[in-house]
Amino acid sequence: MRLDCAVCRSEGHAPRSQVLLVARGREVLATLYQIGGDMLRDGEAGLSEAAWHRLGVAEGDPIVIRHPPALGSASILRRRIFGRRLDAAEMKSIVGDIAAGRCSEIHLAAFITACSTLPLDLDEVVHLTRAMVGAGRQLAWPNAQVIDKHSVGGLPGNRTTPIIVAILAAKGLVVPKTSSRAITSPAGTADMMETLTTVDMDIAAMRRVVEGEGACLVWGGAVDLSPADDLLIRVERVLEVDTPGQMVASVLSKKLAAGCSHVVIDIPVGPTAKVRSQEDAEAIAAMLTAVGRACGVTVRCVATDGTQPVGRGIGPALEARDVLAVLRQQEDAPADLRRRACLLAGAALELAGRAAAGNGAALAAATLADGRAHATFQRICEAQGGLREPPRSTVSRPLIAERSGRVIAINNRVLARLAKLAGAPDDKAAGIDLHVRLGSEVIAGEPLMTVHAEAAGELAYALDFARAHPDILVIEP
Amino acid sequence: MRLDCAVCRSEGHAPRSQVLLVARGREVLATLYQIGGDMLRDGEAGLSEAAWHRLGVAEGDPIVIRHPPALGSASILRRRIFGRRLDAAEMKSIVGDIAAGRCSEIHLAAFITACSTLPLDLDEVVHLTRAMVGAGRQLAWPNAQVIDKHSVGGLPGNRTTPIIVAILAAKGLVVPKTSSRAITSPAGTADMMETLTTVDMDIAAMRRVVEGEGACLVWGGAVDLSPADDLLIRVERVLEVDTPGQMVASVLSKKLAAGCSHVVIDIPVGPTAKVRSQEDAEAIAAMLTAVGRACGVTVRCVATDGTQPVGRGIGPALEARDVLAVLRQQEDAPADLRRRACLLAGAALELAGRAAAGNGAALAAATLADGRAHATFQRICEAQGGLREPPRSTVSRPLIAERSGRVIAINNRVLARLAKLAGAPDDKAAGIDLHVRLGSEVIAGEPLMTVHAEAAGELAYALDFARAHPDILVIEP
Repeated sequence: MRLDCAVCRSEGHAPRSQVLLVARGREVLATLYQIGGDMLRDGEAGLSEAAWHRLGVAEGDPIVIRHPPALGSASILRRRIFGRRLDAAEMKSIVGDIAAGRCSEIHLAAFITACSTLPLDLDEVVHLTRAMVGAGRQLAWPNAQVIDKHSVGGLPGNRTTPIIVAILAAKGLVVPKTSSRAITSPAGTADMMETLTTVDMDIAAMRRVVEGEGACLVWGGAVDLSPADDLLIRVERVLEVDTPGQMVASVLSKKLAAGCSHVVIDIPVGPTAKVRSQEDAEAIAAMLTAVGRACGVTVRCVATDGTQPVGRGIGPALEARDVLAVLRQQEDAPADLRRRACLLAGAALELAGRAAAGNGAALAAATLADGRAHATFQRICEAQGGLREPPRSTVSRPLIAERSGRVIAINNRVLARLAKLAGAPDDKAAGIDLHVRLGSEVIAGEPLMTVHAEAAGELAYALDFARAHPDILVIEP
Repeated sequence: MRLDCAVCRSEGHAPRSQVLLVARGREVLATLYQIGGDMLRDGEAGLSEAAWHRLGVAEGDPIVIRHPPALGSASILRRRIFGRRLDAAEMKSIVGDIAAGRCSEIHLAAFITACSTLPLDLDEVVHLTRAMVGAGRQLAWPNAQVIDKHSVGGLPGNRTTPIIVAILAAKGLVVPKTSSRAITSPAGTADMMETLTTVDMDIAAMRRVVEGEGACLVWGGAVDLSPADDLLIRVERVLEVDTPGQMVASVLSKKLAAGCSHVVIDIPVGPTAKVRSQEDAEAIAAMLTAVGRACGVTVRCVATDGTQPVGRGIGPALEARDVLAVLRQQEDAPADLRRRACLLAGAALELAGRAAAGNGAALAAATLADGRAHATFQRICEAQGGLREPPRSTVSRPLIAERSGRVIAINNRVLARLAKLAGAPDDKAAGIDLHVRLGSEVIAGEPLMTVHAEAAGELAYALDFARAHPDILVIEP
């Protein structure tokens, strides 16, 4: 609005203050910016695209600008800041305000920090999980068993989800899988699936796919499950704070809202993965299982090797290529990705009573080997709008070993950063093809990995970064 | 910048991401907003007034837009979030990033919350205080004794500072007083003084006034003392979180940066004041004294009655009128304001060795009575650019007692809110004139207070609020 606008002056709206916009019966919280000059007239306001769409207004519509109502849960948040535990009703009040978009980043950061400095106890995690489920849409399915799979993440590649979903659906299980896009990683499952088919579907379309094929592989963003979680995650990323309690509530709220009864959770453990020790993995697994039990979902956690990426490709299209290679039983398919997918699919088959204990992975492997998983995957993609081949990069360059020796360490974090600098996930074909694994013997001059990009500038940018970070791969003579 | 700008695309700048602007050797952290349309060309950026001024650029100057550097103290902040105590060097690192404007609101909220959920211990308060002093400008004075006065606040009116400064300077003490403008209250000392003289002075001008008159009464904002404190306070207000440790560091860092050797601190105690019990007041006083000792400033705390406002006026000009009435020894001067100012000035005279223990208040009263305090105040204002009469409101309306009885409670918080709705502190003449005190006998139909405003709309707005809040004054038959 104008700096000298009569509305701002009489209401005392200061620059960058929060204001409530009301139009056509809808409300939006906005940040007020004030301008001089003649772009706006007195009493006029220019809106952001987001506010424009959420209010559904047209040029010239009247809008009302008010002081925002006081945050209903402010006193509850304040008590948690001062170390008092929250009960179910209090957690519901805070999460309701978060999900409705009534909390500023300051409130979100304070909530996250208070729950980290005095970590959430088990009761609070249960309350938080239930509150997050209740604050969004919830799916229900007619089936007694509804299966899901999740990885706590931190490992580049590791794109087991499409393979697992195909195996489980081929064995007759219901798997209404919603996945996220990358937030800080080079690719989310939704980014990868988008190189093969349509993932941006509403609930009705998703339901049709699951009813027809037993499973889907869609983007969760359009489905509005546990919306408070998405808002909290954004701030957690800025602070790089992700406590076990917050992670458990985040994971399980999405699964509960999706209507799942059984969940298998992959916990990669490694020095540069998200979970760094076996003890941490066990603590997180214990909390996931206990909170799952309290909320009515059966959880099985599988601690896996997180010392290096799984598969060769890192980036949406490169990972899709690996997934297709495994499903198609190609000879050059990455064996580690195949094994990891069978291990996790096997755990789900056992959890759902479709395989005896210890026989799940073998049954999963057989379902891949006889081509039924591939056929199921193709049907799911067709139902979502057709199966495409993933795109290929326009420019690429190998990174060469500067000395001979054995690969003794791979830094997942730096590798992920490199793939992002090359353009992933926005440039679908960008990323990294890793040619070595832990223990590989390399000779000076051989390519260690290939960096793919869609523009020469980004390729050069990524290669500069790689040269400045020789710790991506540690080679010992 | 434009949504389709080549710089944004190649660097992956997302809407609302933080970017670093570099021009003419200066840097500014900014939030990126993206627009469609033809207001800007590809490669052009429009800047906020704040960024414009801080970079010192002119229309058409080239600017460089970068990803912001990683926050140097991020890992230290994260450790504090997880409950580890900070040492002096770590606190210096965080406070340095805050003062330099490198912390987002998310980081500030996390720091404040972490220091509230696990409250700062005494060592941390000392580290924080010293770090805040070191992160801004510091004044030095040739005098062995440099005196200051502070009130922890929460009480409307209570404008003792100009009276105390005049008394102390009249007794030959050096009082380089910097005051704040109102943040959430209807008036700060700087707002009130601005109705009488010039308060917006740089350090050189302030030094000239103090050297000539022994004291000054200026706005602290232009002097850049403890700038980290101002940024933290903004976020603390949003969260309404103000722990003893943060308050002590805030108060003492400003005093130390101003070069003070002795400070008297007024702690009003009452159910609707900032400090609500005698025990809380004693705890804060103990911490203020201990941290002051560690940092080399002698602190004396005086717990005062905080059950009702001090003086009659609430709002810049109305409080200035009360201050002048006391200094001029007018018969209708508010006796409580006079007494409170003498009590606190007396404590400072004793602390500085200018009065024997127990004789300070009487000496202060004598300095008022013989007109020397008034003469000193006039000289200070003349040195700051001349003494004016405070403005008078253009519209006003009394609030009438609806029943007869005795005033048994006054809600300071609601009263302050009412004064702000009437336009204080931006409208200098706006605010409240309180006609009753605790214990006053009132008859139905008599005016309890007069609401002053500069526009009929604001007056109506304030009166609506007053009608909706009958708890401003509690009258018992």
